[in-house]
Amino acid sequence: MKIKAVQVTEPKKIQIVEVDMPTIQNPDEVLMRVKVAGICGSDVHIFHGTNPMASYPRIIGHEFAGEIVEVGSDVTKVSVGNKVVAEPIFYCGECYACKSGRPNVCENLEVLGVHRDGGMQEYVVLPVSKVHVIGNDVDWELATMVEPFTIAAQSTWRGNVTAGETVLIMGAGPIGMGILQYSKYKGATCIVSDIDNERLEDAKAMGADHVINPLEVDVVEKALELTGGSGPNVTIDSACTLRTFEQAVEMTSPAGRVVVLGFNVEPSQIPQVLITKKELTIVGSRLQTSKFPEVIDLFNKGVLNPRALVTQSFPFTEVEKAMAVIEDKSIKKNKVILTF
Amino acid sequence: MKIKAVQVTEPKKIQIVEVDMPTIQNPDEVLMRVKVAGICGSDVHIFHGTNPMASYPRIIGHEFAGEIVEVGSDVTKVSVGNKVVAEPIFYCGECYACKSGRPNVCENLEVLGVHRDGGMQEYVVLPVSKVHVIGNDVDWELATMVEPFTIAAQSTWRGNVTAGETVLIMGAGPIGMGILQYSKYKGATCIVSDIDNERLEDAKAMGADHVINPLEVDVVEKALELTGGSGPNVTIDSACTLRTFEQAVEMTSPAGRVVVLGFNVEPSQIPQVLITKKELTIVGSRLQTSKFPEVIDLFNKGVLNPRALVTQSFPFTEVEKAMAVIEDKSIKKNKVILTF
Repeated sequence: MKIKAVQVTEPKKIQIVEVDMPTIQNPDEVLMRVKVAGICGSDVHIFHGTNPMASYPRIIGHEFAGEIVEVGSDVTKVSVGNKVVAEPIFYCGECYACKSGRPNVCENLEVLGVHRDGGMQEYVVLPVSKVHVIGNDVDWELATMVEPFTIAAQSTWRGNVTAGETVLIMGAGPIGMGILQYSKYKGATCIVSDIDNERLEDAKAMGADHVINPLEVDVVEKALELTGGSGPNVTIDSACTLRTFEQAVEMTSPAGRVVVLGFNVEPSQIPQVLITKKELTIVGSRLQTSKFPEVIDLFNKGVLNPRALVTQSFPFTEVEKAMAVIEDKSIKKNKVILTF
Repeated sequence: MKIKAVQVTEPKKIQIVEVDMPTIQNPDEVLMRVKVAGICGSDVHIFHGTNPMASYPRIIGHEFAGEIVEVGSDVTKVSVGNKVVAEPIFYCGECYACKSGRPNVCENLEVLGVHRDGGMQEYVVLPVSKVHVIGNDVDWELATMVEPFTIAAQSTWRGNVTAGETVLIMGAGPIGMGILQYSKYKGATCIVSDIDNERLEDAKAMGADHVINPLEVDVVEKALELTGGSGPNVTIDSACTLRTFEQAVEMTSPAGRVVVLGFNVEPSQIPQVLITKKELTIVGSRLQTSKFPEVIDLFNKGVLNPRALVTQSFPFTEVEKAMAVIEDKSIKKNKVILTF
């Protein structure tokens, strides 16, 4: 039997292909009927040929949710009919990072949709350890947002965002908005910067205490002014340009944290005096470590509100149209998802 | 009554001056007869006019020890005759850093010998909170090494040096050698890099498991080779050049830490991909936070062995000669101290 899948066959070429229906090979596996998948910036990079970790042809998609339709003989954690979201990372368990509880940077890491075929297909087989049950009250549209919110959970954990502190979030895209919600949930005062005033309005509606448009004012000066001259205690850079990283190091307060999420291979200009004098902590945040249960719990309880972030939805067969919408800067959007 | 002091009157001019004998003004203060003071790289920077935090004229010295000769009426922690080392930092207790337990990066920080007159004088008055009793078995020469070892304690704490891990220490000067001893004490495997083979021999004698001379081999390649391709788990850069910071970020393992101690205002070239992809933690380490009791305890117990690091000693009246020795690259040395 054949099923349909979204494949980036080579850079710049995305198409619907037919592949074999996957089947359970091991007793710990489950068969999942995919219902929804979000399109992430990294999927767009694979499409463009600018993700150095991807190989081709590749069935993309690492933000996906679906329904369990079959379980292997050893599976007890989930049952047929369960609504689940996928945790898309595979690791060796043996390297230094894995043994340090940081499998997300495993030396042999494989990410679904990047290093191996991902979730943008009608059916997927996964080890049961890679799926998490989510409550029936969380609709499919929201379920696609679990994975992006684990990225937000990871970055606020890496940055040690703490109640009463001030966090500056650079970039108000899907990740930045998730970080905003997570930081508000943790009790922080939040400043959001973005070059798009519409997105800044959305950030305010979502709880941002202050917003800054770096095209209108100097972001460092404004951030210092808003924090009584001290600077934000945590700066999380989801804009990921060469300059935003530099600005983050410049303005973050003594004893503060800078969280970096970017994959830019070009160097930023970072003087060590700023790190030493303020005893900054600059951390990378990549994917997530054991954050699915926490995020799903908050989704189930309705503590986080990702609804407003899902702005466009397309049947997966219209993936090219969805990509065109993402590329078209004149169209207001946040997260674009595909339905199956 | 007048006493003698070592004053940097203006950049490039260091001399012995007479100043008023200090007297106890508050009931929580103590009068200390200074016996020894170490010369730190930052003292040399003040002498050269290259420490942006110093103002002139300035009595330098922040690594000093002496004997209590008088105590204020409220003082119970120390007694006349006690051997003490000074903790040279003053902070406000009110700012974010102070309230976060990080007074070493207080917004209103003042360091003895930098922002206010320091320990290179025959007598000093200090609040009793700024002196720590050290055992009589620790001789004066060793007592000068307590403060530099608190820097080592801080940097290994900031880098979370853990038993069984591999630490690469860049630079085998007094700070680097202290970090080596501290990392060995914490149970790490230690690699030391320095461009001076004599210092590398000393590092081996002090417990370094491997040494690298970057003038002879590529330090990044060699470090990867020595760690089975993974890179050191912690890299502590006490060499503090633009390039060593870049190399540290390049070679440190996934989930690893990079510790920066430099005050270089020129930027290093740091690509964010290395931080994100490996989820590195890059931390500044400045001065120390509550590390005196721990270091003194280890000195009292003889766990740390700083003796070999004190290579030259001069009467304080010969400070110009001491500075000349420090400047003369042909003279083998590590820590140079002054006696009073």
